[in-house]
Amino acid sequence: MELELVKWLRSESGMELLGDDAAAVDGKVFTVDMLTEGVDFILSEVEPELIGRKSLAVNLSDIAAMGAKPESVLVAISFPCGDSAENLSLAKKLYSGMKPLLEKYDVKILGGDTNCWDNGLVISITAIGSILPQGVLKRSGAKAGDSILVTGELGGSILSRQFLFEPRVFESIYLNQNHSIHAAIDISDGLAIDLYRLAVESNLGAILYSDNIPISKDAIICSRNSGRKPIEHALSDGEDFELILAVPPEESTRLIESQPLLNRFGTRLFSIGKFTDDKKMLIKNSDGIIKNLECKGFVHK
Amino acid sequence: MELELVKWLRSESGMELLGDDAAAVDGKVFTVDMLTEGVDFILSEVEPELIGRKSLAVNLSDIAAMGAKPESVLVAISFPCGDSAENLSLAKKLYSGMKPLLEKYDVKILGGDTNCWDNGLVISITAIGSILPQGVLKRSGAKAGDSILVTGELGGSILSRQFLFEPRVFESIYLNQNHSIHAAIDISDGLAIDLYRLAVESNLGAILYSDNIPISKDAIICSRNSGRKPIEHALSDGEDFELILAVPPEESTRLIESQPLLNRFGTRLFSIGKFTDDKKMLIKNSDGIIKNLECKGFVHK
Repeated sequence: MELELVKWLRSESGMELLGDDAAAVDGKVFTVDMLTEGVDFILSEVEPELIGRKSLAVNLSDIAAMGAKPESVLVAISFPCGDSAENLSLAKKLYSGMKPLLEKYDVKILGGDTNCWDNGLVISITAIGSILPQGVLKRSGAKAGDSILVTGELGGSILSRQFLFEPRVFESIYLNQNHSIHAAIDISDGLAIDLYRLAVESNLGAILYSDNIPISKDAIICSRNSGRKPIEHALSDGEDFELILAVPPEESTRLIESQPLLNRFGTRLFSIGKFTDDKKMLIKNSDGIIKNLECKGFVHK
Repeated sequence: MELELVKWLRSESGMELLGDDAAAVDGKVFTVDMLTEGVDFILSEVEPELIGRKSLAVNLSDIAAMGAKPESVLVAISFPCGDSAENLSLAKKLYSGMKPLLEKYDVKILGGDTNCWDNGLVISITAIGSILPQGVLKRSGAKAGDSILVTGELGGSILSRQFLFEPRVFESIYLNQNHSIHAAIDISDGLAIDLYRLAVESNLGAILYSDNIPISKDAIICSRNSGRKPIEHALSDGEDFELILAVPPEESTRLIESQPLLNRFGTRLFSIGKFTDDKKMLIKNSDGIIKNLECKGFVHK
């Protein structure tokens, strides 16, 4: 529904909405993500600390996708009504899960709102970041011929990374400050669908080279049960929260050779394809055959 | 629970949290309010436009309580899963309810997040405002001897004003720019409890003069069914969203005599009591007898 709604809002109000992972205004970027029980987490199956961590990390990832520096958040939570002491304990665990990220990235909680109701747990976090002198990375900045880079292995996040992923905050700031990056997006719904979103905003197509896509061990494990190939998991699983970057070819070559993020942050860059000016979404498989890329992935209803 | 959680967070992190209606940082104020089905509205009984209006208006009221100018919002919504066309229609109605306030106060929607889940409707809005050169109005600024002013009649908001109240945005900006106002808070949970909150942050007590409290027609109507006096409704009903102001006595006299908001915005100021340095919360009734003020009202669980 989100896409239809955004289209309607754009036409209704002339607003420039949601083209990017965050809105950029007056030197700041702003983003909001609402996580709900049963969709983003199963309260009875996951440590509350991990839920708290994830609800913050998805927002930090959005700020990272803009090449900005996260500064502060506002946290709104609705708890299932019930035992007040239990909810206070739950609230403390949620916060304890956020704390390491708050400290690591020097992010302050500016304020919040807590309520209770006869329904599931809801956490909505608004994150605010500051724009670097280099400006923001937008989805619309990719050029035909740019290399497609990703910041890590993909697929199978459901096994653990959906809660434990590291938002690529430091990586993004470093790249924005020191390298020529044309565009960025984070992989929230899947490599193929998020690459497609970036390509659409840049008015381009893209071709992926199947052999170059880094496949996580988790994707291989998942494929044993799913009956799907590991590469399919890497292409369509959501919640990897790695960055997709559009980088001019010569800069891409430098980055892949020198891997500047590796000794700084332990993060390796992979070059997995190229943006093209024909608006087609393609994938070149191991056998050399080029097929249409199915841009499926988690789609917000 | 909110108070306990905030206490814990303050001690845990050294954060200056939630002392005011909004957080003030770098020339901006930030606030968030999450509205949930069954608590803040009954989806089957209220026009969605009114729900949209209210979810925005409560945030604008928080910005007004800071004496700041609202600028932009981020809107996160989780819809009950079901018919996608129905939800799109609901989303449009929510937005249509917000639109008149967005236009009136020149507020932009910066971004948002929409989801669906197998639970009730949740709307979380984060509002951002700019701080005027005169600075913000804080809860902690009241001085002993200051008059207590309110911006309108109180009680019985449940009949309609809980959805149709006008956030005192223009009034607050005008007063902050042109008059000496020491402190402010908006009445979200009830006159007595919100006055108490302001008094606590200012390290003061307060005395209300029962005869001076403006009682709304709705409070009188409510009292017919509730068996409680209209003044009790005025003291303890929530969601009036009028402002309580702490104003130096001579400035208060000028404001009450000249009523500068009346011809500008149709808003009358009432002087209803005084802040005191004894930390007691009192009310002087019509018969001249002074009693303890019950600081009850809607309390967040």
